[in-house]
Amino acid sequence: MRLHGFFRSSSAYRVRIVMAMKGLSYDQSFYVLRRGDQRQPDYLKLNPQGFVPSLELDDGTALTQSLAIIDYLDETHPEPALLPRDAILRARIRAFALAIACDLHPVQNLGVLNAVRKLGHGDAEVNDWARRVNQEGLDACEALLADAPGPFCFGDAPTLADVCLVPQLFNARRFGCDLSHWTRLLAAEAACLALPAFSDTAPERQPDAE
Amino acid sequence: MRLHGFFRSSSAYRVRIVMAMKGLSYDQSFYVLRRGDQRQPDYLKLNPQGFVPSLELDDGTALTQSLAIIDYLDETHPEPALLPRDAILRARIRAFALAIACDLHPVQNLGVLNAVRKLGHGDAEVNDWARRVNQEGLDACEALLADAPGPFCFGDAPTLADVCLVPQLFNARRFGCDLSHWTRLLAAEAACLALPAFSDTAPERQPDAE
Repeated sequence: MRLHGFFRSSSAYRVRIVMAMKGLSYDQSFYVLRRGDQRQPDYLKLNPQGFVPSLELDDGTALTQSLAIIDYLDETHPEPALLPRDAILRARIRAFALAIACDLHPVQNLGVLNAVRKLGHGDAEVNDWARRVNQEGLDACEALLADAPGPFCFGDAPTLADVCLVPQLFNARRFGCDLSHWTRLLAAEAACLALPAFSDTAPERQPDAE
Repeated sequence: MRLHGFFRSSSAYRVRIVMAMKGLSYDQSFYVLRRGDQRQPDYLKLNPQGFVPSLELDDGTALTQSLAIIDYLDETHPEPALLPRDAILRARIRAFALAIACDLHPVQNLGVLNAVRKLGHGDAEVNDWARRVNQEGLDACEALLADAPGPFCFGDAPTLADVCLVPQLFNARRFGCDLSHWTRLLAAEAACLALPAFSDTAPERQPDAE
């Protein structure tokens, strides 16, 4: 398998975490997003959206969208499971993951920040946008964990929720969020980063890190 | 069960479609988003993100995030299935659904359009933003179906992909997109709207339609 990604892409980081949790080996191709590598014609054949990550299987099939890739990996390599068996708890964990993957991450990604810039706004306003989106989004995530047991987001093992949380906190720091009151989120992050699947795959430890 | 929604919310429409496909009956509560009903304290207890939809189960449990609600419904009421058995095809259908639910819908929802407005932009620029996001996002969706058999998005039965597509096309029309070259998307939509599960749940047929 070959993962097409970028060290700083938080959705590529999600896939790296899951590949490591499942003990899967893979090759990597790297795309510098600011340079537009992901919009080159050859890559668009793999991923018509022009986004990273994509996961290219050994037969050449290309899978796109980090959460779809992760579901595929969880279905084809079930251990350790990313979701528990209980349907309600599965729904709560998925809702937490989607609160990040739908309502937070895409609204602060490079494409949207460039669109804000094109409307005539400079670095300070663009960064304010990204910080606000992370702040409000992760405030809601903290509330979603109000009655969930730790140390991870939902209990004593990492789930899809943690897989989405840890990369997003990386972004939140990058954009200068105030993290001080996210006690539950930071505790889950600390539990995750004690595991090599989360720490070895961190952006700063990737071969293409700047 | 009680669905907390709004006639025009495309993510609430997704859930209405699935409830109808599965033959489930439910009560509804309606929230006027422009008025901020979804930010009232009582509703925030159900849904800390302050978004519709939420699905309140008979025991009072509240589920949030349309795709998590839909996965829950598909797991607890498996027929008709929203995803096929083949892992690769499941991943492709999920990727199509997530291309809409992550990269398109949240970037053109009311919260983001209000944020653009707060940066000092008027109706024309705000609508341009929403139209561009729908145009680019659905262009990519058309490409994602290039080699998928019809008449639905992925074959001869509606799947999670169609459940996300039909409500998004409603938005695309509302924002004035040029739909003419989305031949594959429009064919799938036509196949869907011939089914009561898609047509009876359309925004204009809801009790709270304006």
